[in-house]
Amino acid sequence: MPDILRVAVVGAGRMGADHIQRIHHRISGAEVAAVVDIDLDRVNAAIDGIPGAKGYTDLDAALSSGEVNAVLLATPGFLHHDALLKVLEADIPVLCEKPLTPDAASSWEIVEAEAKLGRKRIQVGFMRRFDAEYQQLRQLIENQGLGELLVLHHQHRNPSTPEGFTNQMLINDSVVHEFDAIRYFTGEEITSVQVRLGKATRNAPNGQHDPQHVLIETSSGVLADVEIYVNAKFGYEVATQASFEDGIVSIGNDAGPYVRTAGQWGGKVTPGFEERFGAAYDTEIQSWVDAALRGELGGPSAWDGYATAACCEAGVEAQRTGAKVDVQLNSKPDLYS
Amino acid sequence: MPDILRVAVVGAGRMGADHIQRIHHRISGAEVAAVVDIDLDRVNAAIDGIPGAKGYTDLDAALSSGEVNAVLLATPGFLHHDALLKVLEADIPVLCEKPLTPDAASSWEIVEAEAKLGRKRIQVGFMRRFDAEYQQLRQLIENQGLGELLVLHHQHRNPSTPEGFTNQMLINDSVVHEFDAIRYFTGEEITSVQVRLGKATRNAPNGQHDPQHVLIETSSGVLADVEIYVNAKFGYEVATQASFEDGIVSIGNDAGPYVRTAGQWGGKVTPGFEERFGAAYDTEIQSWVDAALRGELGGPSAWDGYATAACCEAGVEAQRTGAKVDVQLNSKPDLYS
Amino acid sequence: MPDILRVAVVGAGRMGADHIQRIHHRISGAEVAAVVDIDLDRVNAAIDGIPGAKGYTDLDAALSSGEVNAVLLATPGFLHHDALLKVLEADIPVLCEKPLTPDAASSWEIVEAEAKLGRKRIQVGFMRRFDAEYQQLRQLIENQGLGELLVLHHQHRNPSTPEGFTNQMLINDSVVHEFDAIRYFTGEEITSVQVRLGKATRNAPNGQHDPQHVLIETSSGVLADVEIYVNAKFGYEVATQASFEDGIVSIGNDAGPYVRTAGQWGGKVTPGFEERFGAAYDTEIQSWVDAALRGELGGPSAWDGYATAACCEAGVEAQRTGAKVDVQLNSKPDLYS
Amino acid sequence: MPDILRVAVVGAGRMGADHIQRIHHRISGAEVAAVVDIDLDRVNAAIDGIPGAKGYTDLDAALSSGEVNAVLLATPGFLHHDALLKVLEADIPVLCEKPLTPDAASSWEIVEAEAKLGRKRIQVGFMRRFDAEYQQLRQLIENQGLGELLVLHHQHRNPSTPEGFTNQMLINDSVVHEFDAIRYFTGEEITSVQVRLGKATRNAPNGQHDPQHVLIETSSGVLADVEIYVNAKFGYEVATQASFEDGIVSIGNDAGPYVRTAGQWGGKVTPGFEERFGAAYDTEIQSWVDAALRGELGGPSAWDGYATAACCEAGVEAQRTGAKVDVQLNSKPDLYS
Repeated sequence: MPDILRVAVVGAGRMGADHIQRIHHRISGAEVAAVVDIDLDRVNAAIDGIPGAKGYTDLDAALSSGEVNAVLLATPGFLHHDALLKVLEADIPVLCEKPLTPDAASSWEIVEAEAKLGRKRIQVGFMRRFDAEYQQLRQLIENQGLGELLVLHHQHRNPSTPEGFTNQMLINDSVVHEFDAIRYFTGEEITSVQVRLGKATRNAPNGQHDPQHVLIETSSGVLADVEIYVNAKFGYEVATQASFEDGIVSIGNDAGPYVRTAGQWGGKVTPGFEERFGAAYDTEIQSWVDAALRGELGGPSAWDGYATAACCEAGVEAQRTGAKVDVQLNSKPDLYS
Repeated sequence: MPDILRVAVVGAGRMGADHIQRIHHRISGAEVAAVVDIDLDRVNAAIDGIPGAKGYTDLDAALSSGEVNAVLLATPGFLHHDALLKVLEADIPVLCEKPLTPDAASSWEIVEAEAKLGRKRIQVGFMRRFDAEYQQLRQLIENQGLGELLVLHHQHRNPSTPEGFTNQMLINDSVVHEFDAIRYFTGEEITSVQVRLGKATRNAPNGQHDPQHVLIETSSGVLADVEIYVNAKFGYEVATQASFEDGIVSIGNDAGPYVRTAGQWGGKVTPGFEERFGAAYDTEIQSWVDAALRGELGGPSAWDGYATAACCEAGVEAQRTGAKVDVQLNSKPDLYS
Repeated sequence: MPDILRVAVVGAGRMGADHIQRIHHRISGAEVAAVVDIDLDRVNAAIDGIPGAKGYTDLDAALSSGEVNAVLLATPGFLHHDALLKVLEADIPVLCEKPLTPDAASSWEIVEAEAKLGRKRIQVGFMRRFDAEYQQLRQLIENQGLGELLVLHHQHRNPSTPEGFTNQMLINDSVVHEFDAIRYFTGEEITSVQVRLGKATRNAPNGQHDPQHVLIETSSGVLADVEIYVNAKFGYEVATQASFEDGIVSIGNDAGPYVRTAGQWGGKVTPGFEERFGAAYDTEIQSWVDAALRGELGGPSAWDGYATAACCEAGVEAQRTGAKVDVQLNSKPDLYS
Repeated sequence: MPDILRVAVVGAGRMGADHIQRIHHRISGAEVAAVVDIDLDRVNAAIDGIPGAKGYTDLDAALSSGEVNAVLLATPGFLHHDALLKVLEADIPVLCEKPLTPDAASSWEIVEAEAKLGRKRIQVGFMRRFDAEYQQLRQLIENQGLGELLVLHHQHRNPSTPEGFTNQMLINDSVVHEFDAIRYFTGEEITSVQVRLGKATRNAPNGQHDPQHVLIETSSGVLADVEIYVNAKFGYEVATQASFEDGIVSIGNDAGPYVRTAGQWGGKVTPGFEERFGAAYDTEIQSWVDAALRGELGGPSAWDGYATAACCEAGVEAQRTGAKVDVQLNSKPDLYS
């Protein structure tokens, strides 16, 4: 086991640059050893002020440098498949930002490759699992403190979407987090997805039907629904209300200083995911580092990445057809049970 | 126009007895002139302590006594049809507790009879329309202060159900209020209903599948959903969260003294509909009295009663089949437009 | 005992006019029989639309008309003393808006006159005692559900003050309600008052030092403090936080629809006392009417009016001197024990 | 400037042991190089699992080992004076847990010694300054977004006190945090302290009068008051309500999952300071490390430690006498302006 994780951060865009700063300034037991991006300017900007970090435009070069013993993969999703195979070949731990890969078939190839390797090396970046409230709700479901969980209502609201955010991305980039959260809360697989399209906001770009109402079922029959609303303007909100046999639990409520002025009481809405989940990212990365130094996973696995990819495929078809679509999953390899 | 409403309260069960006390103790401009119930003991108990109130076991006798100029109908719903026809014949104002009648066909007969009379005499007891928060949400929808309304999420939770509460009554007795609320909020008719049955609580009596998730659409495409959960144990909750183009509004939140003791912060959950809507009942009855003294309606009409009956019929079929069921409505008579 | 309270409302200013509408439209068992004001135009405006109400410019004329069997006194406080003596002479129930009289000495004369009459005829208009949260907090203190009450923190904030509102009126018109509330909550007399003057807002008119911090002790040693802040701009707030041996209770929290828009979560601050205590006024007047028809008091007595007047005198001296000032009370007549 | 802070943690009790774990597991840029405690067993327990950390029973030995370039002082306060002088002599950065020293005179000696050294080496552990809500309130006061700050109401409530917690420790160990918070919020010195003793809980140990009400003034006339209540049973609470010219701000409100069950709504009260301020401790230590690596202070200075010691002395006298006691401060050395 290494003493310290010498991380190659692959992808120096917004998310990668954030992780570089995080590892350098706030994470114990890890250092940024390499930054990899095809854009050399971006590489140089990212390693500026990070002593000891070297820049690469190619993952292979970084992996073969001998100075790297872990990878944080923060490129766009379509580049994940090939990079993950290389990391598995190098047999070192990797934190792969979601999605594992953009579709279920390619995700399944990753699962098979890792199963063949016989060691869980891939942790997927579903950071919500490291949010304190998410963990408390999961624990309450597990220990049945309020009896059986029956229904989950999710709200996922963004102020607006970046350019090029398509209608399918509502499912693949946004609801994907809810698929994972529902799997995390219930400890069950999702069996079907249905999508309702109703009245749309005039604030969505062309081609997006926003909001949408996504209906989900799990293997034991828990009903979940998601209001996905990505041009909601007012602010950012990720919240869940859970109905149990013996009570109701809500997480994701607004907090912070409480102000009364000019006839209004209240506070500031969380503006975005960085503010909402910043602490969860820190905890996620620290958990990954601590576990990787022990040769373990500190979070969701490649199987979780594959299963949510399958949910997304069903979700996109449901969005297109309006019908209830079953989620198709291969058998879970032993490595993940 | 009369100076004072001399009300015959028909039905001296729990709801009727409540209204008798309300009119006697808290309502201005009305007095309990008669109490009608087939059970004479109940009549006598109800008029005890109400000076001037006379008891009857028959509505005809009360109407022909010359001492009554208005009716409050609080019998079980299956008795409403005949009583309403008599009141229309007497051409006096009536407040009819919901439902107007138990099914759309008999409700339509009432609508036709009133249309033939040519005067709106029947107000239906959807008391939520008199709740301050309901009125504020409706106003916000109407004046588009937050842009267009897009989605409504309703929670309707009861601690438990009385004996004999069947699976169909989840729709006919509970969701009926949500049908009316959605119609009230949007000012639109409901066009379809779908019902999802998932994991059920072990606290429901035999024959009830509880909770259920009801999916509703309005004529302009507003999506609504209702979690109906009538054995929820924790307390009583009727709440709505509305998503607009420019923001989110919630009503029905817990209030009252805020206590911290023994490691817990919070307060008391509203135990039942009397506590939640007691003030709304007062306002409803006062509004009916004030309007009736002017020869007008002070609340929802027979048409509203008919339209919600049609929604209930669609809802019960949707519950049975799992399919999305269209709501069938006759053309609205001129009297109600 | 009369069947109905035929009320002479004395004083047709803002508060009197409100009470006239209240009695006419929302109170059962009472009617406005007379309106008395020295300004005949105001009388005529007030009785317009109130069938059966007669106008007077003189209380004696109203009392001797034979058409009045109760009085609601809503004139400025300096006119209360003489009017109350006349009502006591007529031996009919009166609801006297606070203050009983403007000073302890004249209040004591009223107490003595009522004690001599031997019947409690005077109810004082401390309407907060009819607010549901006030009643719940009092009940919790009485039944010691959280052990002994130890400390009370009061906030009394107004958006602004009417013209002519002097520094002494912060005590006599505003803190007077807190004096009564503390007496009501604890069931004890107040023994001393101290006033701290610190940094003042620039939004107060000349001559007012605003806010002030008032320190109060009760006979058993409960510590209370009041932030009185009458040009607080943001809205209206009357709130209390109570520290018990076993917990903390807060009343007066903001409620109503919960809105998120434009980066803010929250709702509307109550704008003024009508919105905050409107329901309490209704309950107060109905309680007075119901009790008066039984020959009883339905709320605080002349003794309560006298005791708060004595607190105000101590408060004004404390405001002037900065010292802790003892409250001087005569012995309580048997009538009030 | 060193690359990494090699910290000697002095004092391996509860707080010291926490900091050792924190530095080892969550802080970037620092490592635990030494643990010093007179109790060798405690030293050995503390360094177990911390690779590279050496144990000492004597600060001098640690300082002269050549392996330490910073000190975190977590012994009882009465040992701080001598240790701080040694650290100043070594001219290395130190984070000194509060209090700086137990009294104003000895604190002043530290200030003088540091002023003579001419470099700010001492940061005092008032960790609340690193709480996000504290920082937001301070910023709002500074930028006058709601006009001038006028009044501060503080609540400081603990479930219970450890054995041996004396009446004076309510001031010296608990209110000391409020003294610093008021100085932090306002950027002003405290000029006087008064203490009110009223009704006491039966849950306090002998010799403690609990709760107490502490009245504080700042140099510009801001009024503050503190309810210090250290046997409050219900849980832990540190909260402030600030009255401004244009509004009211509250911090320290309860948060976390919102549960409704068994007739109650609410959540869990924070049980203690670790849960309330755990994140603030992390931020404080990281801030100290980051600043120390640049040769700067990352938080409150020795002057802040001295000034709060002077407030505590005034507070204890005020507690004993009931009088308003002025706070005596020496002139601030140039180093701190």
